[in-house]
Amino acid sequence: MKITPISGFPEFLPAQRIVEQHFLDVIRETFELHGFPSIETRAVEPVDRLLGKGGDADKEIYGVTRLADRSEQRHDSDAELGLHFDLTVPFARYVLEHAGHLTFPFRRHQIQKVWRGERPQEGRYREFTQADIDVVDVGELAPHFEAEMPLVIAEVFRKLPVGQMVIQVNNRKIPEGFYLGIGIDDVAGTLRVVDKLDKIGPAKVKDQLVEAGCTPEQADQCLALAAIRSEDLSFVEQVRALGVEHPTLDEGLEALAAVVRAGLDNAPGALVADLKIARGLDYYTGTVYETQLVGHESWGSFCSGGRYDSLASDGRTTYPGVGISIGVSRLLGLLIGKGLLTASRSTPACVLVAVNDEESRATSTQVATELRARGIPCEVAPKPAKFGKQIRYAERRGIPYVWFPGAAGDDAAAPGGDQVRDIRSGDQVDADATSWEPPEQDLRPQVIRVES
Amino acid sequence: MKITPISGFPEFLPAQRIVEQHFLDVIRETFELHGFPSIETRAVEPVDRLLGKGGDADKEIYGVTRLADRSEQRHDSDAELGLHFDLTVPFARYVLEHAGHLTFPFRRHQIQKVWRGERPQEGRYREFTQADIDVVDVGELAPHFEAEMPLVIAEVFRKLPVGQMVIQVNNRKIPEGFYLGIGIDDVAGTLRVVDKLDKIGPAKVKDQLVEAGCTPEQADQCLALAAIRSEDLSFVEQVRALGVEHPTLDEGLEALAAVVRAGLDNAPGALVADLKIARGLDYYTGTVYETQLVGHESWGSFCSGGRYDSLASDGRTTYPGVGISIGVSRLLGLLIGKGLLTASRSTPACVLVAVNDEESRATSTQVATELRARGIPCEVAPKPAKFGKQIRYAERRGIPYVWFPGAAGDDAAAPGGDQVRDIRSGDQVDADATSWEPPEQDLRPQVIRVES
Repeated sequence: MKITPISGFPEFLPAQRIVEQHFLDVIRETFELHGFPSIETRAVEPVDRLLGKGGDADKEIYGVTRLADRSEQRHDSDAELGLHFDLTVPFARYVLEHAGHLTFPFRRHQIQKVWRGERPQEGRYREFTQADIDVVDVGELAPHFEAEMPLVIAEVFRKLPVGQMVIQVNNRKIPEGFYLGIGIDDVAGTLRVVDKLDKIGPAKVKDQLVEAGCTPEQADQCLALAAIRSEDLSFVEQVRALGVEHPTLDEGLEALAAVVRAGLDNAPGALVADLKIARGLDYYTGTVYETQLVGHESWGSFCSGGRYDSLASDGRTTYPGVGISIGVSRLLGLLIGKGLLTASRSTPACVLVAVNDEESRATSTQVATELRARGIPCEVAPKPAKFGKQIRYAERRGIPYVWFPGAAGDDAAAPGGDQVRDIRSGDQVDADATSWEPPEQDLRPQVIRVES
Repeated sequence: MKITPISGFPEFLPAQRIVEQHFLDVIRETFELHGFPSIETRAVEPVDRLLGKGGDADKEIYGVTRLADRSEQRHDSDAELGLHFDLTVPFARYVLEHAGHLTFPFRRHQIQKVWRGERPQEGRYREFTQADIDVVDVGELAPHFEAEMPLVIAEVFRKLPVGQMVIQVNNRKIPEGFYLGIGIDDVAGTLRVVDKLDKIGPAKVKDQLVEAGCTPEQADQCLALAAIRSEDLSFVEQVRALGVEHPTLDEGLEALAAVVRAGLDNAPGALVADLKIARGLDYYTGTVYETQLVGHESWGSFCSGGRYDSLASDGRTTYPGVGISIGVSRLLGLLIGKGLLTASRSTPACVLVAVNDEESRATSTQVATELRARGIPCEVAPKPAKFGKQIRYAERRGIPYVWFPGAAGDDAAAPGGDQVRDIRSGDQVDADATSWEPPEQDLRPQVIRVES
């Protein structure tokens, strides 16, 4: 049977996976530091729920059917299952299903694979990992949660070796109030056009706005609003200077100022108020988030989200929420793909314990057991080959130390007691398996940022 | 849309998920200590590969098709994808696909979900997590790897709060050589019958063996072999005492003795040579492993595996391997389901930072930022409610500490500087967010074994 990769379903080699594990560990650890417990939802949901109210087939859902059932030509779509294409739809269902067992406001993080049957292209996959945080409450959600989300994300990106990531924030109420204030009624339609700014430029946005019924003056005002960007609170003044008045605009400015202020206090330099950020999705009603990797702006946003007044509803109770999602696979696919990140070795092992001869393997295993008992990852050499060959085995995997158990005889690597060699420097010293420690930075594989 | 659970696709609540995370962390950490790097394979494989050479439909595979393609009634089964039902088939494919980029002998661990469309029943799921380790080599695999596997597993179970788990080991060559030595030619058929011993008992096994063509004396000999069990090397003497001679039997005894000896040296009490262990699967050719949770023997094996001479083959090169797989979901489903394990809290947060009033939320957030900078997970109270209410918020989640930022006024919880209260004891002391540390055991949620 011929083996060919399946397009859109990438797999990492062990060293690349070490980079991914580092990212996932930092993300999880930071989410937990901020008090977000983990949940996982099942990979499948009923197809009806995935399609949503509108039956939107754009989502490119993968259906899942037992092969045994398929031959029976079943067509009861009620029972039909599909793979989830994001973590928000399953989370909303989880909240409704388990509401009686959860405490609200409910915070959670969720790091899982999702699947989309889209046409694969660079940085887009059919199977990929997302890392989400959300807070939901019953009936009403306090606005301070909208300021909390980007602090968590800023900390994640400060700890990851990705370079500078800027979190762009806006509040939907700002364009909404502004558009209403200048007499534009079709807020959603206007937002959709302005959202294309980065792709098609201001001239074409203006054309499309005018086509859609705006006056040229209104279109210019929309563009002036979208051009406002500030790392501090000065965006408020700049909006005021455009001379538009509307209570929804006031609300939006106040809310965004609170988000930016929390950023200045707790994560200086990480946030920027950027009033062109719209997020296409209709369900956002307050703060919206996108991100830019400085120097790689064309790669687009790796982390996006916002506030929705109705994350979930069972008809009686509505659950408003705010959330943000990191596109882990897309970020890693680009950073690893462009050769910007690598790992110092392809195995967790810090030490290779050499084997003098097959008869004394038990001695080498004993050394390994003692090192492991003190948290030092190691591996026993697969063969009692010549020592040069055992060292090359370690070298090929990037294992920094080779341990030579003491042995008698002129050809022993460590004729007296045990010795350990740093194979990078060639330094070899006497060592005791019950007390030797590698330098802290050698204990685990390091993720290395390659400067381009 | 009505929400109903999907049978066989269980989901954990946050506190249960903390127990699962603890298990997965210990498993991964131990695998890494033993030098097994992680890989993940895509969730889907071509259906042809999942079905294997025999086209065995028993595996209850879930097929995966884009909904958009389904309407086109495609029938090119070449392109058809299915969800993997174990981690061995995808690993074998991964080895073949990436062989040029791997270093052999290749060790890896893999912790992922798998899916089987079986009829759901207690402790059996349609979506579940497996944790596997395997070593594969090119052409030949050194036998010492068969002794290494159970040492890793013994360490995992020593560190997990599951009670005593015994690893039962056997070597396929022992029954094979023994059966040949007493004149039974149908080794596989005889093994299959003997494998039913625990289910149907020795009398029925004897009947079935005789039905299959054994003499009553041969059947008795098979049962005598299967009854042998020893924690030390005495099983060798016991087999010898049965007076059967065959070179394959000698090989098997020597190999199993090496496995048991490594266990005695490095994980005393964890292994038992148990000569009735056969593992139904035909591809095992050497050591086989099963496990028993002492006191819960009827739950069956939670961790099984063995050696296979041909894990993978591309026609020219054969890759022998040895591996073992922990059924994490099945183990947790039973332990959590029977109420034997729980977590000390439902959130990673160790501290709830109280909020005096909405205006001073920034002060509370600053405290949280300082605690987090020193690795202390915390959450800021969602509302500036009465302090009793804020304490109850922490209590309901099991958060052990509430932090009161200093505030002026008679009704302040901490009228001077900051104070922190252990809400279990009620002790409240002055504290500084830049230096206060919780006791080590409070920093992370604890997994608690409930004695029944």
